[in-house]
Amino acid sequence: MQIYGDLNSGNCLKVKYAADVLGLDYTFVPVDLMKGETRTAEFLALNDMGQVPVVRLDDGRTLAQSNAILRYLARGTKLLPEDPYLQGKVDELLFWEQYSHEPYVAVCRFQMVYLGKSADERDPDKVKRGEKALDFMEKRLEGRRFFVGEALSIADIALFGYTRLAHEGGFDLSKRPNISAWISACELALALPPLRHA
Amino acid sequence: MQIYGDLNSGNCLKVKYAADVLGLDYTFVPVDLMKGETRTAEFLALNDMGQVPVVRLDDGRTLAQSNAILRYLARGTKLLPEDPYLQGKVDELLFWEQYSHEPYVAVCRFQMVYLGKSADERDPDKVKRGEKALDFMEKRLEGRRFFVGEALSIADIALFGYTRLAHEGGFDLSKRPNISAWISACELALALPPLRHA
Repeated sequence: MQIYGDLNSGNCLKVKYAADVLGLDYTFVPVDLMKGETRTAEFLALNDMGQVPVVRLDDGRTLAQSNAILRYLARGTKLLPEDPYLQGKVDELLFWEQYSHEPYVAVCRFQMVYLGKSADERDPDKVKRGEKALDFMEKRLEGRRFFVGEALSIADIALFGYTRLAHEGGFDLSKRPNISAWISACELALALPPLRHA
Repeated sequence: MQIYGDLNSGNCLKVKYAADVLGLDYTFVPVDLMKGETRTAEFLALNDMGQVPVVRLDDGRTLAQSNAILRYLARGTKLLPEDPYLQGKVDELLFWEQYSHEPYVAVCRFQMVYLGKSADERDPDKVKRGEKALDFMEKRLEGRRFFVGEALSIADIALFGYTRLAHEGGFDLSKRPNISAWISACELALALPPLRHA
């Protein structure tokens, strides 16, 4: 399998984290977002949505959308509960992440890291919605180690991608103890070194 | 099963369409978005994400996020291909819909239908991205009746919800013959009367 992506993108990191923890054999093919490498004819032939990540499976077929890739790689593994209702609760968070978290938490980080803005120069509406998303996560994690069931699932991996980097977008995780503990639990489960995020 | 929703919302219509075509037994519980009924303590106890649609299953457990509900209801039915890769291609479109289609096509409709704006008063960036989303659909549908495989799937239902109403958001479907034919095919498969959308 080949994973086409940019390791500065949380969406791409998600796929790498899942593939690594599952011990999948893959090649990582770097695609530089900031150099417009997702807009070339060659790339669009790979993914007509013009986005990373995208995977090319061993039979040559391709699949895009980070959370669709996670869902595909996780089927029948420890990263997805067997119970259909719990799978539904995983999906609930995967869709919430793409609609109510990524467009705010990741985009604020983009404005600071890539566009060089200060925290005060971020889009106020995106800041407000990003804070709201993190508050929701903090509340959902009350009394829980992981989001669904008792073990790490792709719901955690999907949310971990950009939440772990939220401080780079001007968000303060130090006042959110549940998220901080969950990040540590994810890092442990994914065998990643602890990242200073406060 | 109870479906809590607002029939003016394409996200809610998706769930109703899937439940109807599958012949599921359910009660529809109206929730008025514009009256703030998704913000009450009672509703938040049902769905802490504060959004419709949400379903309450017969055992009392709840599930939110339109596409997660579609995924749950469609498992093991004609609305989801059995092949894992094709399921991945369905998921690819479900996530694309929530990230790259709904925030533009549905939001432009919201600005016109609910906020009373004219087509010219819509947010230009959202118009541009909505047009791009429809162009993508038009291209993907070239030579195809449905988006994935040979039959109606939840990928079609998810995209049909707001695309069928796109003209209410100022988008012109008459210059997009593939989408128009696909809407007719979906209407036929869902036993819905044809809607004049041009």
